This record gives sequence, C-alpha cells and structure tokens, in this order.
Amino acid sequence: MKLALIGVGLIGGSFARAVRAAGRVRHIVGFDTQPEALHRALELGVIDELAASAASAVEGADLVMIATPVGSIEAVLSAIAPRLSRSAVVTDVGSTKTAVIEAARAELGIAFDRFVPAHPIAGREHSGVEHSDPALFRNSVCIITATAGTGASAIRQVELLWRDLGCRIEHMSAEDHDRVFAAVSHLPHLLAFAVVAQIASDPDAERRFAMAGPSFRDLTRIAASSPSMWTEICMSNRSAISDELRNHRQLLDKLQRALDEGDAGTLRQVFSQAATASRQGSDAID
Amino acid sequence: MKLALIGVGLIGGSFARAVRAAGRVRHIVGFDTQPEALHRALELGVIDELAASAASAVEGADLVMIATPVGSIEAVLSAIAPRLSRSAVVTDVGSTKTAVIEAARAELGIAFDRFVPAHPIAGREHSGVEHSDPALFRNSVCIITATAGTGASAIRQVELLWRDLGCRIEHMSAEDHDRVFAAVSHLPHLLAFAVVAQIASDPDAERRFAMAGPSFRDLTRIAASSPSMWTEICMSNRSAISDELRNHRQLLDKLQRALDEGDAGTLRQVFSQAATASRQGSDAID
Repeated sequence: MKLALIGVGLIGGSFARAVRAAGRVRHIVGFDTQPEALHRALELGVIDELAASAASAVEGADLVMIATPVGSIEAVLSAIAPRLSRSAVVTDVGSTKTAVIEAARAELGIAFDRFVPAHPIAGREHSGVEHSDPALFRNSVCIITATAGTGASAIRQVELLWRDLGCRIEHMSAEDHDRVFAAVSHLPHLLAFAVVAQIASDPDAERRFAMAGPSFRDLTRIAASSPSMWTEICMSNRSAISDELRNHRQLLDKLQRALDEGDAGTLRQVFSQAATASRQGSDAID
Repeated sequence: MKLALIGVGLIGGSFARAVRAAGRVRHIVGFDTQPEALHRALELGVIDELAASAASAVEGADLVMIATPVGSIEAVLSAIAPRLSRSAVVTDVGSTKTAVIEAARAELGIAFDRFVPAHPIAGREHSGVEHSDPALFRNSVCIITATAGTGASAIRQVELLWRDLGCRIEHMSAEDHDRVFAAVSHLPHLLAFAVVAQIASDPDAERRFAMAGPSFRDLTRIAASSPSMWTEICMSNRSAISDELRNHRQLLDKLQRALDEGDAGTLRQVFSQAATASRQGSDAID
C-alpha cells in the first residue's frame, strides 16, 4: 500500500511510523506546509519521499491521511480532490468532525464516499515529528464518525488499520462527537487558557507563578498547548463549545453566589459530585 | 525537642517524619479526631505516643504543629490554649492564612506572639498518613505570614525547621498570601470541580468520561481532591476567591462573545498569553 501523509506533526508522524511498524505500507510520501518539518520527517525515516504539494503527494496513493491542524483540512481537500486515484481512501485525524465532513462533502465530489472521518484520542505534551512514536495510539480509542454517504469498505479499511495500531474503535455521529469533545476537551482547554491568561495579566503575575503548586502545574501543562491549533479547534466547533461554556457559566454563577453568601452546602455538593466522578473515572481509565 | 502533632494526615505525617529524619525532635505526641489515622501513625512510627485530646497532646511540648484541615484550626487553638507551656511555639500548615491568624489572635491570648502562621507548598495526589513522605517538602517553598505581633525568635525557630526540611522560605502578609493562593490554587480547584461536576450531571456522562483524553485526566486528578477539605478552604478564603472568580467570569464573558461572533483574534490572543506564560512558568518551576 502506498500512503500519502499530509501533515507530518506528532500525530501524522506517529501514524506513519505505526503503520510502517505494523507492515501495512510499502511506501510513504509526505507533504507539509512547513518545509523544515517535512525534511526532518524524511531524515528520521518517517516518510520515504517528500512531495512538492499536497496534490502531487496523493498521486497514485491508496490511502491519504490528512493530519494537519483542523483549520487547514478544507484547503487540503480542495487541493487533493482533482488528483486522487479512483480507489483512494481518504481519512483524517481532526479533533472536530462536523466541519471536516462539510468540507469533504463540498470538496471531494464523488470521492466523498471514500472519505472516512476519524479522531484518535491520543496526544503528547510536545508536538512535532521529532516526538512521534509508533506506540502513541496503543490502548487508545479511535472514533469514526461515518455518514450515511460513507462507503462500507472504506470504513472497514480505516477501522482495520487503527485496530492494527492498538486502538479500540468507537462509532458515533459527527454531531455527537463534537458535543462530547466540546465538553471533555475543547471547553477544558479554553478554561485552562483563561485561568492562566488571567494570572499572566495580573501586575503580580511573576510572584503568582512562582508560588504555584503541583495542581497548578497540571493546568499550565494544558495551557501550554498550541494557541493556533486550539483557536482553530474552537472556531471549528464553536457552536457546541459555546453551548457548553454557557452551561459552565451558569454553574459558576451558582458557585459565586455560594461564596458570597457563605453557603458551604452548595460548594460541598458540587465538589463531591466532581470528586466522586473523577475517582470513578480514573479507575475506569487506568 | 518535644513535638505535639495535631492532625496526622499526609502533611502532618510527612512533617513528623521529616523533622525526625533531620534529628530535630526527641519525642512526637500525636492527636487526630480520626482514631484510625492516629493508630496508623503510631504503628508506622510516625508518632511515638498518642494523646487522648489536642489539649493533652500539647502538654510539655516545645513545638506544636497544627496540621488539620483549615476548618478545624480554630477549635484546635481554643482547645490547646489553656494547656500550652510558657515557651511553646505554635505553628500550622493551613492553606489560608487570614482566617487562621484571626482565630489565633482570638484564642491564644498572650501566646499569640509565639504563633507562627506557615504554609508549605507541597501535596500529593493521595492523602493520609500512609502516604506521608519525609522528602515531601524538599525543594518546596514554605510561606511564613507573620504579623506585627509575632515574636522574632518564634519566627526564626520555625524558619530554621522548614529550611532543614529542604524548603526555601518566603515571607508575605496573610492578605497577600490569600490573594495569591485564591488565584493560583483555590480558584483553579473550584473550576476543575465545576468542569467535572458539569460533565457528571450530563445524561451522557458515562460516555463523556470514557472519551476523555490525557488533558482531561489532569483535570480529574485535581477534581479528585477532598471535597470537604476544599469546601473548608473556599469558605476560609471566600472573599479573595470570590474576587478572582468575578474576574474570571468577565474573561469568560469575553470568550463566549468571541465564540458566538466567530472572533478568532480574541481567542488567539488569550490562548497565546496563557501559552507563553505557561511555557515560561514551567521552565522556571522545573
């Protein structure tokens, strides 16, 4: 199988190394808008060949993996559509799915039935192909958000591939996916950014950061994520995130009242609900 | 030196083991309102003797360490005040300081000048004396929030002790301390509890938790903290936390508008400010 990899960052690079290690590909052609990343991927042996454009990368490819930031997926689809071979399966790893599917429907034409929208739940603190790891997806969940128009054999092919890399497959609708991830990923990132930005804009910021304990370091780890990647994710899923944020602000209104009125019972009730769920959740995850 | 340890949890237990390892104490008497924790501390050799009450624990002690949850400190001070020896130094490890100092002023009478309010910035995911560790405070900061009425020799004694345990000492006013920790610890905990409680109360909670990625696990680790301990901390520092929460809600209003209006620039600006500070902060901390 010949793989075209568009976007050679942490996720794309890890995917390429993992499918190669699994013996699933013969040849990998890569493209990235950042020439340095692309050359680094070639040097590291993550890809076998570099292409001058996304369009030329997909020529003759059996599988096209789009692993760019979500904000670039539409442009990639538009560029590759005319050059796809007739049987090529196209898939992606974007963190939001409704907008990606809309773009695919608009750009791919008759090839839309060979587009399999997917989202492997994996990541690392450090981005870039130099941190890519063929074991990144082992014991992870990969979500496939196929539509009524997605062909069964394309779905099966992408499913098998991710299973080979150690993933459990979950199927859901793109709308469900985007609502779930607005709640468990996108809003938490937005809030971590907000907490840290608030402290950073305080006149006493330096001392405040110097006093931070271990819990705060967990937050700053989240808030150290790529601002441009997260801006694109938020823009791409803004309606679901906006709904979650609205609910969150209502809960904060309640907690503010509890603080101002000295209402310990409300604080304890909310904290207990969270602690119970967190402890059950971490048992389930580990 | 004879040490009375009131409260034998993770912090109290770690303190006892650390001062013993440093050769600073001859005998440790412990008391805790939870008899199981107290017996466990004796079995583990964290304390040498158990007392029937806080009052009897402090008899003949040179140093009294109060390591209970902040909500119990006032009652402990009230109980021990009549039984303190004339030269005993009293100190604590409470996460909030203004309320603790007010309680000490009200309860300790002439012994108030020997009360040294302190807060070592250390913790672990798991609480309880069985997780206590004599190295817990190494390379940490210990904040001392002495008042104009605190005696210099008592301050020096407590400072030397924490330095022996590997801490760097910072002095600040209780009001400054409480404002700083409202921002970098208390509000972040309250928000982590709020995010997780919101997901837990969703009809789709189980699936949402099952889909959570690595960043969300950092949040649930924070939200797995003791609800009663954090309710007490929030109640004890509610005015400063309320101020920080009010500022935070204003920032969320702005982010909600940005989402609703598709204003990527505002999102990127807030996210970038946070990411820059987080990356600098983690360099400074590590």
